[in-house]
Amino acid sequence: MITWKNLDQLDACKELAAAKKVDIAEAMSGESGAERAKKYCVPMAEGLFFNYAAKAVDDDILEALAKLAKEAQLTDKYKALLDGEVINTGEKRMVLHQLCRGQLGKDVIADGVNKRDFYASQQSRIAEFAEKVHAGDIANENGEKFTTVVQIGIGGSDLGPRAIYLALENWAAVNGTKKMEARFISNVDPDDASAVLAGIDVAHSLFILVSKSGTTLETLTNESFVKDALTKAGLNPAKHMVAVTSETSPLAKNEGYLDAFYMDDYIGGRYSVSSAVGGAVLSLAFGPDVFAAFLDGAAEMDKAALEEDPLKNATMLDALIGVYERNVLGMACTAVLPYSQALSRFPAHLQQLDMESNGKSVNRFGEPVDYVTGPIIFGEPGTNGQHSFYQLLHQGKTIVPLQFIGFKKSQIGNDVIIEGSTSQQKLCANVAAQIVAFACGKKDENPNKNFDGGRPSGIIIGEQLTPASLGALLAHFENKVMFQGFIWNINSFDQEGVQLGKILAKRVLARDTEGALTVYSDLLGI
Amino acid sequence: MITWKNLDQLDACKELAAAKKVDIAEAMSGESGAERAKKYCVPMAEGLFFNYAAKAVDDDILEALAKLAKEAQLTDKYKALLDGEVINTGEKRMVLHQLCRGQLGKDVIADGVNKRDFYASQQSRIAEFAEKVHAGDIANENGEKFTTVVQIGIGGSDLGPRAIYLALENWAAVNGTKKMEARFISNVDPDDASAVLAGIDVAHSLFILVSKSGTTLETLTNESFVKDALTKAGLNPAKHMVAVTSETSPLAKNEGYLDAFYMDDYIGGRYSVSSAVGGAVLSLAFGPDVFAAFLDGAAEMDKAALEEDPLKNATMLDALIGVYERNVLGMACTAVLPYSQALSRFPAHLQQLDMESNGKSVNRFGEPVDYVTGPIIFGEPGTNGQHSFYQLLHQGKTIVPLQFIGFKKSQIGNDVIIEGSTSQQKLCANVAAQIVAFACGKKDENPNKNFDGGRPSGIIIGEQLTPASLGALLAHFENKVMFQGFIWNINSFDQEGVQLGKILAKRVLARDTEGALTVYSDLLGI
Repeated sequence: MITWKNLDQLDACKELAAAKKVDIAEAMSGESGAERAKKYCVPMAEGLFFNYAAKAVDDDILEALAKLAKEAQLTDKYKALLDGEVINTGEKRMVLHQLCRGQLGKDVIADGVNKRDFYASQQSRIAEFAEKVHAGDIANENGEKFTTVVQIGIGGSDLGPRAIYLALENWAAVNGTKKMEARFISNVDPDDASAVLAGIDVAHSLFILVSKSGTTLETLTNESFVKDALTKAGLNPAKHMVAVTSETSPLAKNEGYLDAFYMDDYIGGRYSVSSAVGGAVLSLAFGPDVFAAFLDGAAEMDKAALEEDPLKNATMLDALIGVYERNVLGMACTAVLPYSQALSRFPAHLQQLDMESNGKSVNRFGEPVDYVTGPIIFGEPGTNGQHSFYQLLHQGKTIVPLQFIGFKKSQIGNDVIIEGSTSQQKLCANVAAQIVAFACGKKDENPNKNFDGGRPSGIIIGEQLTPASLGALLAHFENKVMFQGFIWNINSFDQEGVQLGKILAKRVLARDTEGALTVYSDLLGI
Repeated sequence: MITWKNLDQLDACKELAAAKKVDIAEAMSGESGAERAKKYCVPMAEGLFFNYAAKAVDDDILEALAKLAKEAQLTDKYKALLDGEVINTGEKRMVLHQLCRGQLGKDVIADGVNKRDFYASQQSRIAEFAEKVHAGDIANENGEKFTTVVQIGIGGSDLGPRAIYLALENWAAVNGTKKMEARFISNVDPDDASAVLAGIDVAHSLFILVSKSGTTLETLTNESFVKDALTKAGLNPAKHMVAVTSETSPLAKNEGYLDAFYMDDYIGGRYSVSSAVGGAVLSLAFGPDVFAAFLDGAAEMDKAALEEDPLKNATMLDALIGVYERNVLGMACTAVLPYSQALSRFPAHLQQLDMESNGKSVNRFGEPVDYVTGPIIFGEPGTNGQHSFYQLLHQGKTIVPLQFIGFKKSQIGNDVIIEGSTSQQKLCANVAAQIVAFACGKKDENPNKNFDGGRPSGIIIGEQLTPASLGALLAHFENKVMFQGFIWNINSFDQEGVQLGKILAKRVLARDTEGALTVYSDLLGI
């Protein structure tokens, strides 16, 4: 029997608040530090593991976190979600993105179909379509192969697919599976579409219009840009465009598109990479097998998240420690720091995933909560960040928990030896060094050169960033956000906070404004 | 007579803390909101202005802020900096980046030369070099023109020049001044250099190696990557590379480079866009006149920052309000939200500029301070962010002050009309709407659809993003950070916080580790 309680109604919460705090600098120094670094390590999936030795936890706090997990019924709630219960209470919807990559619960029937079959069939249809494009069976009006695929979408239809594309672009090139270049048009700023269109060969470009409702204003505006460009080039837009949308949208079964692939209301934009939203562009860019491997990696991680003991469940543990940092230690931010240039836009995707899901002030029953919820997420790849904002992270007045990600091997494999080490070794040496520097600090008589340490971090380490390990990585963070939403008793799957701005923007465009809004409209020359 | 006092020693600080707080939602509603939106607006330079109506200030608080500015001697300290006093006390150096774009103070003589003449002469040498490259007088070994310029640098040698390049790329293309494509290699991750090199035609590429000391490990490693690629292609690296470095570095007057352009110790990396660090790549990409216009815009804004009355000095006012938000209202972050796709990497540059400058815990005498200092900075372009992390900004438990930027005109000028408005109008309507939505909120009986408002924002509005207005924008933020450093009594121009990680990384590579560092090195396969 599942009960939904606010965090401050849970007994474990008080126990956690009362537990003695860990002095990270002390705990991570000397031999005790070495022991922690070996012991506080959990395997994930696809060769990834999560090391949390440099977090502000010890066996007592971990025990309290395990109680919290149990009391909050994290596993039961996850299972209920997998079984198709209406977890998105605000919008009265099931939450089914995990079903795109495998089935771990009961059969979910909705809209008259088995939803696992529905998602799998869309993936198959995309695979078939992508293979025809790659073979030239679907080609432009001159019978020439499409060489570029352009995703038109915003928010969840943009950030996730773009981050994953960038993460696998070089891997695919080296592994011989790079089929097409991908580009992305998202912003309603006309310069975004203009610049992307100026940089591609439209005659050999296939465009994917992504909008669940078929009414997203930014996306339809950008579609119009693209159609203009195609028409001006003497091309038929209907022969260059596919849609990814819901079956009930105006874009479905529409002769203006070569084909349409379907998603539904049970998958939120920020969770849609595993659906047709990510599937179409990634299958076209890298081939359906690469996308399938990505989904398999995610499925493995979904399965690993079912483990009830948080000490054996990296995702649940990561979620619990995050809540401890936010609600007990009072830390408002988390920095995501991948030591992999391929993950350059992964922090931006996680920023959306986390902040849009858990940046809430009401619980799942719509009642205001009296505790803080989701953190502010930001980040850039290391080593770049080290030469930038790490100054504040090391010596600033505000402590920011850190989420490192690192891989033993590079994707491309080219390297040079300088001063006795490869670039890849330097990259890995830097992340190891940073964890210890943040945790232990270094006393110095000159306060300007003093490092207090005590700055918590966790690291996910993998062999190499591949489609499968990337899928596992993404699922880890999706499920972490889900578990945290359960702990905070909030609905991580709606986004009412984005509505007001939309309404007011429409008023500005309709000249239906008053007060300050009129003045700002004038100042901006609208 | 300048005295350097901690913020909590200033009388105005107490007055500010005691002043009645502003209810933004109330103040920005109805006719009072319209009046504020008109009144709380200051011109900047190059057509930019700063509107702060939606900030948590009123005439009383502004008066207290003006007292703070006076008591903290902001103008005197800025003038001292311009006159060449040793403002970077930690490293015992002058701070001269403004001198790259004009002279507002006394003649500054150092290293036996007039420093304004030195910076201007480097700019002239770069201009001459760039023109020869564009004319084909400096060409590759086959006498063919260079078409691509690749900057190799990290931190300040990367983020600023890259953000500015992206900001002007489309403008230059439309205005016929795009001379060369630019690319950037920064990360020690070998996949960064490999991917950039795979995407360019090395035979027609000119590489700029940027390192003040000539010893930055990441940069020298990436240089080696590039030299390998050139050598493998049968090319002579010395004919494809220039250096930007200090006159005393091993890269200066070195036969391994076509030429070298000089910077010095008085310009920190994050302030170096105006020096040869930005000058070389931007003059090559867009022509020296575009870079000169950029510097002129920055110089105008440097001049505007000399105004003693903060109500007439947008930069000083922005700095003061930021301190009020951080130290009185207790807000730890600031989101930078440019409604311009061209500014896609500008937030990342400001993140470095601000967090590396003011993320400090000691005052300029090296004594710990008892108040918070620089905020955490993050951001993405609007409207993209609206479909992502704005959920937390609107309805999350943590209030984040917002820095909007908007322009009336797009850069490229292509547009489409959908539902009666252009994309540019939609873009501007959205930013106007967001300001009011964040400020005023909207009551709703359903707490999940309720917006409390009260979320402060400021906006900088310009006619168009051009070289001159971009220069002004950059100088505004550089000088804002400087003024805030003065108020916090910290040294905004050193970065001791980046040192410990470097030392430990060297130890890892030398296998000179113990404890946790050994374990992490093993886990990462080093």
